[in-house]
Amino acid sequence: MIVLSRKISFAAAHRYYQKSFSEEENERVFGRCYTPHGHGHNYVLEVSVQGEVDPQTGMVINLVDLDTILKEVVDPLDHHHLNFDVPAFVELVPTTENIAWHCFSEIKKRLPKGVTLHRARLYESDDLWADYYGP
Amino acid sequence: MIVLSRKISFAAAHRYYQKSFSEEENERVFGRCYTPHGHGHNYVLEVSVQGEVDPQTGMVINLVDLDTILKEVVDPLDHHHLNFDVPAFVELVPTTENIAWHCFSEIKKRLPKGVTLHRARLYESDDLWADYYGP
Amino acid sequence: MIVLSRKISFAAAHRYYQKSFSEEENERVFGRCYTPHGHGHNYVLEVSVQGEVDPQTGMVINLVDLDTILKEVVDPLDHHHLNFDVPAFVELVPTTENIAWHCFSEIKKRLPKGVTLHRARLYESDDLWADYYGP
Amino acid sequence: MIVLSRKISFAAAHRYYQKSFSEEENERVFGRCYTPHGHGHNYVLEVSVQGEVDPQTGMVINLVDLDTILKEVVDPLDHHHLNFDVPAFVELVPTTENIAWHCFSEIKKRLPKGVTLHRARLYESDDLWADYYGP
Amino acid sequence: MIVLSRKISFAAAHRYYQKSFSEEENERVFGRCYTPHGHGHNYVLEVSVQGEVDPQTGMVINLVDLDTILKEVVDPLDHHHLNFDVPAFVELVPTTENIAWHCFSEIKKRLPKGVTLHRARLYESDDLWADYYGP
Amino acid sequence: MIVLSRKISFAAAHRYYQKSFSEEENERVFGRCYTPHGHGHNYVLEVSVQGEVDPQTGMVINLVDLDTILKEVVDPLDHHHLNFDVPAFVELVPTTENIAWHCFSEIKKRLPKGVTLHRARLYESDDLWADYYGP
Repeated sequence: MIVLSRKISFAAAHRYYQKSFSEEENERVFGRCYTPHGHGHNYVLEVSVQGEVDPQTGMVINLVDLDTILKEVVDPLDHHHLNFDVPAFVELVPTTENIAWHCFSEIKKRLPKGVTLHRARLYESDDLWADYYGP
Repeated sequence: MIVLSRKISFAAAHRYYQKSFSEEENERVFGRCYTPHGHGHNYVLEVSVQGEVDPQTGMVINLVDLDTILKEVVDPLDHHHLNFDVPAFVELVPTTENIAWHCFSEIKKRLPKGVTLHRARLYESDDLWADYYGP
Repeated sequence: MIVLSRKISFAAAHRYYQKSFSEEENERVFGRCYTPHGHGHNYVLEVSVQGEVDPQTGMVINLVDLDTILKEVVDPLDHHHLNFDVPAFVELVPTTENIAWHCFSEIKKRLPKGVTLHRARLYESDDLWADYYGP
Repeated sequence: MIVLSRKISFAAAHRYYQKSFSEEENERVFGRCYTPHGHGHNYVLEVSVQGEVDPQTGMVINLVDLDTILKEVVDPLDHHHLNFDVPAFVELVPTTENIAWHCFSEIKKRLPKGVTLHRARLYESDDLWADYYGP
Repeated sequence: MIVLSRKISFAAAHRYYQKSFSEEENERVFGRCYTPHGHGHNYVLEVSVQGEVDPQTGMVINLVDLDTILKEVVDPLDHHHLNFDVPAFVELVPTTENIAWHCFSEIKKRLPKGVTLHRARLYESDDLWADYYGP
Repeated sequence: MIVLSRKISFAAAHRYYQKSFSEEENERVFGRCYTPHGHGHNYVLEVSVQGEVDPQTGMVINLVDLDTILKEVVDPLDHHHLNFDVPAFVELVPTTENIAWHCFSEIKKRLPKGVTLHRARLYESDDLWADYYGP
């Protein structure tokens, strides 16, 4: 089994806020991440796909195709404020876990036949990251 | 000459916006960085101080003292939106250059006697940074 | 399945020495690592936990809680000589493998209900590391 | 279960070229990687082995032995042009996928009894890598 | 004084060969770098420019302009074999020192008025690099 | 002017202790670094040399020669406890500043004619380092 992985980064702002919580509850649960205007990160997304290696090209997937998909998924996040600009995060708190899930779903539906999405790993910083392996 | 350097990081949101510019001019000059709600970064600040090495302690400055200063300077930036939450950036565009200058000024006035601030280096990402050496 | 990972580092000294071995055997088996006073490393511990994402908070575990656990486990190792200061390594050789196992065990018993310890990864340096996945 | 990993790097040139393809097809499929004289990379190989921890030495495998094996496998690639100097890649396109497979096979047959090769990970750059877990 | 730095990478092949040397002399002087078909690296170029910060934009140079210049300079090197494909290195040995000098010269002549090239730093790998500060 | 830099690492233990201080003074000044058996680090030494580029070889210094010098200087430190095993640090506190000074002095006297030592940079960790530029 061959798993090919590709890394791409994007810069975004976010804030942790659950509207069904009171202000005190938001503060207690989210601490420094519950800020009115948000803060931001250089996110790093690592995408791992799995498949057969084509005997002629030696590739699981053509990197040009994979990069096109990643750009489509990452562009709506890059240089944006997730809570305001990205529909998926208007209701959902943009935690590392949820952004990993979001990227997984968006990439999975774009992959060509024969290529499986093994994992989406999202780094919020170099000391915090989440892996989503699919449902 | 010994120069001692210390690295500290913080996460913040910012947007590039010059109110004396028209909207078209902001867009033309600042491109993707001119976003209404901003985006963000994991900023890294590297501070270099210079001085004599104390023959008994072997130190230019006690690291506990340097870390206290850095925390004082970085805390008002960390987990904040620079344009909204930091007075210095209400008027001034929070570019890498200007944040480096801001950190330099804030650290310089806190250093103990005999220790000189050689440089403040600010990374917006691992492929973009600014060095300020003072006036 | 979501796996959330957190990185923390600590500085420690250690030496490889098996008292049931002769001096020659210690030297032959452990080479440069068999030194009388020991040497040291900046160890990096990566801890991966697994669980359901809470639909309201978007979290597998609150990071403040995880960080408290990691501090409790790492503090007795940080700025210490493992062979002399840490009971677990008075008998056991503090290899990368054994330190990974030790950290896994100490973290596992502190995790809240519903959160599983997936893996403890310990880096001795950036070109050597051990993963322990539990018994 | 303990998995021990070791990182080693090598510098090599390669080109993507499939002789059963026409020139147009090579260009279309391989893009910038289809160059007459090739280009190159600082490859990084991460090897993960699995086994029981010896209770006396605390080791899965003696690092001196593992390093000897890795040197044997990497030396014929280091400072070479894969397409011209390495028999395995005279026919096979030296993609990241195929180099990972090649390293896996070469290491696997050299490991001592009781030690299993879990994975060979090959980085072509820090944003592209392939994992091979064996057949 | 503000110095702004930007990092860009490229993958290239090269070989060390001085045609005025005998084969023995090439081998003795260049060792493993004297290979017939060459080997390669992921080169990293860091470019540092110096200038006044524009009080309205907060910038030393617009990053879009700097990136355009860097792309022009790096594109003829990226995914190429320096000795065969780059006129500057047909006679000149493509050492880290000489590639740094080459990049410096190419960038310097493209910079807009008021912006000075402070330094070109070229990494051949993460443990070897050359800085050129101009004549 | 060309400055060529080379990175090498070593693992060592150390403790901060000034025998002319009382125990209380050692504790107050050195904090966590004042431990009876010491702790340790993966130190990284970056050495920068300066000189003319030889027009035939394209080199400031032959890397094989530089590496031989660095090995001679670093070997007595690597896998050792600085306070016990290295004569220079029996009296002198092995701070980052003093280790940088020590490496500078040891390298300087070994460099060939025509090559100047520009700087020795010593990293104790990736967030603390000292630069020594000579007397």
